[in-house]
Amino acid sequence: MQGDVVVHVGAARAEWWRETLSALMPGTPIRLWDDVPDPDAVSAAVVWKHPPGGLRRFANLKVIVSIGAGVDHVFVDPDLPAGVPVLRITGDDLTQRMKEYVVWQVLALHRRGWELAEARAAHQWRQVVTPLAGRRGVGIMGLGRLGAAAAQALAGLGFAVHGWSRSRREIAGVTCHAGEAGLGAFLAASEILVCLLPLTPQTEGILDRALFEKLPKGAAIVNAARGGHLAEADLIPALDAGLLSRAVLDVARVEPLPQNHPFWADARIDITPHIASLIDPETGAGRIAANLRRFFAGEDLPDLVDPARGY
Amino acid sequence: MQGDVVVHVGAARAEWWRETLSALMPGTPIRLWDDVPDPDAVSAAVVWKHPPGGLRRFANLKVIVSIGAGVDHVFVDPDLPAGVPVLRITGDDLTQRMKEYVVWQVLALHRRGWELAEARAAHQWRQVVTPLAGRRGVGIMGLGRLGAAAAQALAGLGFAVHGWSRSRREIAGVTCHAGEAGLGAFLAASEILVCLLPLTPQTEGILDRALFEKLPKGAAIVNAARGGHLAEADLIPALDAGLLSRAVLDVARVEPLPQNHPFWADARIDITPHIASLIDPETGAGRIAANLRRFFAGEDLPDLVDPARGY
Repeated sequence: MQGDVVVHVGAARAEWWRETLSALMPGTPIRLWDDVPDPDAVSAAVVWKHPPGGLRRFANLKVIVSIGAGVDHVFVDPDLPAGVPVLRITGDDLTQRMKEYVVWQVLALHRRGWELAEARAAHQWRQVVTPLAGRRGVGIMGLGRLGAAAAQALAGLGFAVHGWSRSRREIAGVTCHAGEAGLGAFLAASEILVCLLPLTPQTEGILDRALFEKLPKGAAIVNAARGGHLAEADLIPALDAGLLSRAVLDVARVEPLPQNHPFWADARIDITPHIASLIDPETGAGRIAANLRRFFAGEDLPDLVDPARGY
Repeated sequence: MQGDVVVHVGAARAEWWRETLSALMPGTPIRLWDDVPDPDAVSAAVVWKHPPGGLRRFANLKVIVSIGAGVDHVFVDPDLPAGVPVLRITGDDLTQRMKEYVVWQVLALHRRGWELAEARAAHQWRQVVTPLAGRRGVGIMGLGRLGAAAAQALAGLGFAVHGWSRSRREIAGVTCHAGEAGLGAFLAASEILVCLLPLTPQTEGILDRALFEKLPKGAAIVNAARGGHLAEADLIPALDAGLLSRAVLDVARVEPLPQNHPFWADARIDITPHIASLIDPETGAGRIAANLRRFFAGEDLPDLVDPARGY
């Protein structure tokens, strides 16, 4: 490892990250954001939602590492140092956790779990009949690592799974659609729509009224990607209009979701606190240390982000 | 088809069954339980919870058909005509529905869905961290068609799945245990225990305090088999003692679960109204008609029950 590593994370976890990365990278000074003795000595920045422009003070920065699978929180910085490579965290753990979450939420929507929960709370024995999974169309938007794994798992359980991505993919058991041309047919088949897209200028606000109108009437949506994918102002009107019947949101534009946000008061909207694929910090720190070692050793980097695509 | 068919089902569905079976079995008179002009003409009885002793009035009965996968409601009759074969309904639909239900409930318990639901109801953004599925032991009691399918689906999602059955089974990706000798090791591995056993005198009340004590402390149980498997008086004390943390019950000794039953008031007990594998009546009627045709044609009968085993 060449030079110091600076870390920007929430205050509550900062000391844990300093200690953990120090233990994983012996000999490399790990500096917290507000305690960098020599900015010129910093060669790597490990960041979660750093202050825009803040990375420019490190004149010899060689690499930026996102604490997470998403890098939208990095590229949102208009003063990002030009030409510095960005790494993210991927890995089997994140894929596994997302697969669990998506399968869980799709099954709950498919089996109308909210109706069963309402009946149980009211002490009522009220049966709900649902079609077999094979007659339930599920659409996965975004067929990267997470989306492909979720689509395969749902197909394995017997659902009629459709997938959509920018460029065409092939996944066994999944009907794959691609690009603008394929979006209409994809949406028309998606009684349950799951968003697992990367957040880019092209996908920002993609879950909006115009899209909801192309789904089967009364469809349900699951957003397990980024809050920025949802045009939040369009959601409650779409539920009121019957375009959608339910929404499950693991993410929001502002997190934690503010106390006065209208989503909290709407029982048709289920909210989980960004736990679909929470990185276990131990695993994340290990992956970051390994990635930095590989970077400075000049090895192959599967977690390198393509800045043109933004993921 | 030789002779008349008598049907015993709940009053609300009786006429539907008469019409549907009549359409499926042209030329065969379909009689409702209380409207049989000539009991001696009846050769087949299609029943759900018939009155004990009630089948003895049909002197020429050749076959009894259970409306469902379980036949405990048939064999509970001490005056069942001796030597008359019993058929049940099995089929891909039932297996598929049970697989969906078990995977859903196991994922919800694994990801601590009840804590997330409590936080959401309280408008609180409260993260819950859970281990990966690979570090979660799930035990499936009963490895018949339904149990084997559920075990395989859970293993496919990455869970550490254990199975238990009377005689040893082999299922890829599942650690199989058998008989009394294997029960202790099976239970010790089951953080989430799913009961899919047939109800027989040997399995009646098997989910009792002695069994709960052999599970990892704070385990969760899912009973998707029969109400008779659970020693109901043992459940709330086991939750109070911390032996169990949660229970999901799709079945009860008396169904619908009576309004004054203490399970309704206990938030640690989730109750679903026997919908895990609800037979779609269209599918069930088709299966019954086909089975009766096969029976009277002397063909092979995969749905024939072994009365010695009781399933």
